[in-house]
Amino acid sequence: MNSKKIGIVGLGLIGGSLGLDLYQKGHYIVGISRSQETCDRAMERKVCHQASPDFKLLNDVDLIFLCTPIGSIVPTLETISSELSPSTIVTDVASVKGEIVQKCSEIWPNFIGGHPMAGTAFVGIEAAQYNLFKNAPYVLTPIENTPSQSLECLKKIIAQLGSIPYITNPEEHDCAVAWISHLPVIVGATLLESIDSKAPSNILELAQKLASTGFKDTTRVGGGNPELGLMMAQYNREAILDSLIKYQQVLQEITDLIRQQKWNALEDILRKSQASRPYFLKD
Amino acid sequence: MNSKKIGIVGLGLIGGSLGLDLYQKGHYIVGISRSQETCDRAMERKVCHQASPDFKLLNDVDLIFLCTPIGSIVPTLETISSELSPSTIVTDVASVKGEIVQKCSEIWPNFIGGHPMAGTAFVGIEAAQYNLFKNAPYVLTPIENTPSQSLECLKKIIAQLGSIPYITNPEEHDCAVAWISHLPVIVGATLLESIDSKAPSNILELAQKLASTGFKDTTRVGGGNPELGLMMAQYNREAILDSLIKYQQVLQEITDLIRQQKWNALEDILRKSQASRPYFLKD
Repeated sequence: MNSKKIGIVGLGLIGGSLGLDLYQKGHYIVGISRSQETCDRAMERKVCHQASPDFKLLNDVDLIFLCTPIGSIVPTLETISSELSPSTIVTDVASVKGEIVQKCSEIWPNFIGGHPMAGTAFVGIEAAQYNLFKNAPYVLTPIENTPSQSLECLKKIIAQLGSIPYITNPEEHDCAVAWISHLPVIVGATLLESIDSKAPSNILELAQKLASTGFKDTTRVGGGNPELGLMMAQYNREAILDSLIKYQQVLQEITDLIRQQKWNALEDILRKSQASRPYFLKD
Repeated sequence: MNSKKIGIVGLGLIGGSLGLDLYQKGHYIVGISRSQETCDRAMERKVCHQASPDFKLLNDVDLIFLCTPIGSIVPTLETISSELSPSTIVTDVASVKGEIVQKCSEIWPNFIGGHPMAGTAFVGIEAAQYNLFKNAPYVLTPIENTPSQSLECLKKIIAQLGSIPYITNPEEHDCAVAWISHLPVIVGATLLESIDSKAPSNILELAQKLASTGFKDTTRVGGGNPELGLMMAQYNREAILDSLIKYQQVLQEITDLIRQQKWNALEDILRKSQASRPYFLKD
């Protein structure tokens, strides 16, 4: 494809990694960060050709990736929208789409929600790396009025990252990630909180000594970054509540089976769980 | 310590791995398996010096490890008890202790419950390996009438495996493993079952495509061997029900916080979870 002029707002792990790959693919990258130090470092690392805290850098770009924290996406788009050319495509990288897509599309009709499902445990420009998005799902959530040529252009760009593109609507995206990303956080955090707050102290102490890889894996995302967990709950509240209620129903069913010693029915559920898990795993 | 004559009943992953290490430490090992083929292979692999389906091999051993499936431990001890010398110490390796210890101690006063907390995903004599128990917790659960010199002898033997010994009572053991081993299985299986049975088909399909390492880790033990999950529930029913009820209370609290948008309180719980998890991890 033709080389484009691409703006990246927010030069952290995701914004920086997008810049590294797209720079290398021959696009001209301009980066925006509030910190001049981050801007300098981004140019040094070849994340972007030009970088500045000044949004004016964006006024003739073909495409903008909004890579700020989720709470800043809408305010940022409001700030920059008066400076942009109408042909500029704007996308974001937030992990929840419904509200963001609705508000951003009102501000900027040439907006397409996006969610690259990749990351590491690290943050900031120094954490940016090549090929972060390779073989990872990259969801795009166009809506009815999304210009089709804008979607085609964005699809070509993300194909250059080596991502696996999925096109769906914001609501389906949010329901799916509630189940596979957000509910696991709550399930694991609840395990940690319940043993910590409700087990007698002698049992807690012994449990800490005996805990092994099963406990470690089950609680990995639940014991992760609290800001991330809070953000998910705030921005994907309805879908999370829906999946939580369904989860609680099944948990109650399983509890009843154990209480009533209905072992065949419990074994059926455990067999189904074992059989269903491989469908969620990539090889 | 002096070399002992040690019997191992059940030559699978655990029994076989015990044999490999104790053989190498200079003990004389006799193995029992119902399958002559397994007996032959166990001698070939230096799991034991002698092996046979015939329990008579056990009639002059110093110590017996019962490494059969959990449901066979009590019947096996009943069968062999008439042949044993009263000085023979008997131990088992089951992952639940309460009922086993009670019944086995009635049959054989020189019984000490044990639980080596190590394993792999594989089973059978071919899966047996050296150093399986090294640096892993090995719980012993003596009761009031346990002969103290028997406990000392068993402690020395398991020290030779490089295990980390913990002495507690059967009830505390069962409560602790309900929290850290058994509840994680139920929590993960419930996640798999709830998405599989309650998510609409379009969401399930998308979720399967987008699921990543967070979902994979959270469901690893929940999507594991159904026989193991069932066995835990059957043999540790009361402790599991107790931890499940406490888990459900916390899950309801968290659900209410999300519903009522009490974000500060939710963030507090997520912070506590993040802070508590390292206490369960070994480095």
